[in-house]
Amino acid sequence: MSSPEEQAFRLLTEYANGFMVSQVLFAACELGVFDLLAEAPEPLGAVAVAARLGTSSHGTELLLDTCVSLKLLQAETRRGKASYQNTELSSTYLVRASPKYQGNMLRYLARTTYLCWGHLAQAVRDGKNRYPEAFGVPSDELFTAIYRSEGERLQFMRALEDVWSVSGRHVLAAFDLSLFPLICDVGGERWPHRWGCVLGLVCSLVSPGEGRQLGRHSGSGRKHLHVSLVGCSGALAKQCTSLYPGCQVTVFDIPEVVQTAKKHFSFLEDPRISFCEGDFFKDPLPEADLYILARVLHDWTDTRCSQLLARVHRACKPGGGVLVIESLLDADGRGPRTTQLYSLNMLVQTEGRERTPAQYRALLAPAGFQDVQCRRTGGIYDAILARR
Amino acid sequence: MSSPEEQAFRLLTEYANGFMVSQVLFAACELGVFDLLAEAPEPLGAVAVAARLGTSSHGTELLLDTCVSLKLLQAETRRGKASYQNTELSSTYLVRASPKYQGNMLRYLARTTYLCWGHLAQAVRDGKNRYPEAFGVPSDELFTAIYRSEGERLQFMRALEDVWSVSGRHVLAAFDLSLFPLICDVGGERWPHRWGCVLGLVCSLVSPGEGRQLGRHSGSGRKHLHVSLVGCSGALAKQCTSLYPGCQVTVFDIPEVVQTAKKHFSFLEDPRISFCEGDFFKDPLPEADLYILARVLHDWTDTRCSQLLARVHRACKPGGGVLVIESLLDADGRGPRTTQLYSLNMLVQTEGRERTPAQYRALLAPAGFQDVQCRRTGGIYDAILARR
Repeated sequence: MSSPEEQAFRLLTEYANGFMVSQVLFAACELGVFDLLAEAPEPLGAVAVAARLGTSSHGTELLLDTCVSLKLLQAETRRGKASYQNTELSSTYLVRASPKYQGNMLRYLARTTYLCWGHLAQAVRDGKNRYPEAFGVPSDELFTAIYRSEGERLQFMRALEDVWSVSGRHVLAAFDLSLFPLICDVGGERWPHRWGCVLGLVCSLVSPGEGRQLGRHSGSGRKHLHVSLVGCSGALAKQCTSLYPGCQVTVFDIPEVVQTAKKHFSFLEDPRISFCEGDFFKDPLPEADLYILARVLHDWTDTRCSQLLARVHRACKPGGGVLVIESLLDADGRGPRTTQLYSLNMLVQTEGRERTPAQYRALLAPAGFQDVQCRRTGGIYDAILARR
Repeated sequence: MSSPEEQAFRLLTEYANGFMVSQVLFAACELGVFDLLAEAPEPLGAVAVAARLGTSSHGTELLLDTCVSLKLLQAETRRGKASYQNTELSSTYLVRASPKYQGNMLRYLARTTYLCWGHLAQAVRDGKNRYPEAFGVPSDELFTAIYRSEGERLQFMRALEDVWSVSGRHVLAAFDLSLFPLICDVGGERWPHRWGCVLGLVCSLVSPGEGRQLGRHSGSGRKHLHVSLVGCSGALAKQCTSLYPGCQVTVFDIPEVVQTAKKHFSFLEDPRISFCEGDFFKDPLPEADLYILARVLHDWTDTRCSQLLARVHRACKPGGGVLVIESLLDADGRGPRTTQLYSLNMLVQTEGRERTPAQYRALLAPAGFQDVQCRRTGGIYDAILARR
């Protein structure tokens, strides 16, 4: 019905107001709206929600009604009084008790990423992250802001747990990792602290459908993978032990992160998951058949990526490989939109970028890796497998 | 193809990343990407854009490619090299020379609104705006932050000019204002400074199609409207003289705003537009047939709105009226989404809210106005006409 010019104006308005939509989501999570509604035995009115959350009645009603128009809540009106309940979306992703809860990631975006993005224009000008303006931290200290307190470090680790609770299984299932007889680990860098996860698997598995014994730690005859996760919340390790039940996982990171992980994450109870402290730019990497670098390379310049991949290659057994888990840009760099935004996020928060398959090949090949295969999962994160 | 759960996750991701989309738009405007491409005789490559804007080549390429996926730019690749040009959207709304340029409003959103929204959860908690956290300004000084320097005051006035360059004509044409023989003005409040525009019209017009002489200032026999605009950039006044060629417009606001307007806005050259300094909560309002309150009531509590409307009613001639220009909420308050976001914006930036038609009726009727008619324009701003 509307003219192309009016449609364009609507799109422009949607973009301009995008930050408001993000903050509605962030605020409703932070205030505990979805948890309260999940726990309530019946839908609640705005007055009841405000009373239980200790929030203003006007602000609460407005927030709830906006959540309805965003399909984060549904409302039912009886005798002129609206009552609210969660939708499938919020029940699945915004209630703390859900296994796919994303609230930690949203909180991290709200408290850290949102602030850095307030200076995007300047990041485009000088090509550097915005930690100086946002947190008073030098640009080259990538993780000082994110790990600015134990609370923030824990927040970030929980955020990564949210990511892998949704995407972990897809990226780990993109290739049959049981084909590798011994899968091994990489570690975190001590400084600047690392951003993503480095996951290594040390395993002895029977390849499905083949029945050949690939294990090297096969004294017991038990299939297992040995996985080392760096800086991660353990969610990817958990996905790994779930998908490859014979694996063992070592979570490997700088001491502070390992200590926070040991203190706060329950996956320690899984005997297949253990810890190791180290710096993936300096310390010797454990020998393995497969090294997994999840959301690691996107933090770093090509030079640093090459250094890390060369270290991985030297440690990797012949026939082994590396699994890179990242959000892949299209070949021409002009999509998918989410990955482009994440690449700009790397600009404002790290020294890296998201890359195209060709750009990953260009890093992997000179490091000695071959037979590079890219698999798009259809989700945000994709998988690249390369062999030594 | 994807499951409902995956679709929900995609929607959640879109919401979570909304602030990134906003900032891509804000940054590209601020850096002058669209102006540069509009002025260039041919599409430019990323290297050329970076060189002319003095920006980093990596950041620029990333920003340009993200603009392409947002339809803010289009790219053409020849011999592996991409060159960029504006789309219809950016040519119309993002190039400074365009009469519908929105860059000032976007800059205002980026520099002021984005910061206040970083504290939305707290605004919902206590029901107050976030000027203390965002700008160190007390909550009850509504316009101290917006008018924190002459530069910011000018920025805000230009932002309003952007708004009315697109929406002004629609809201002024929603009713035939030429039916009012004498249309008059309201003024700005001295403190807290006002947010929107108060537009009054004093006119003597021949009603189209009727041919009857309605003018009171008809000594000259010339049709004219007398309009008083408060705190406005003059864009609504310009739309008014364009739509009702016989009108005269007085722009009325606190002295600082009037002085900034006189210094920076060219509409002074239109002899039908003049200025008056005053405070709409204190000073006598000029006599008129019609008072226009554009984006004014949404700044204020019901109590303050009632005070203002009572003052307007006392000044208004019998048979005259008031035209309220606001973004109208649906009857149940759960839409349109843009208006809900703006209502939350009133929460984080003012002491007011957006309202439903019934809520405006509930303010207008006790102030003495009757025959309240609401007209939705299909755009962001709507019109409510009420008669004394």
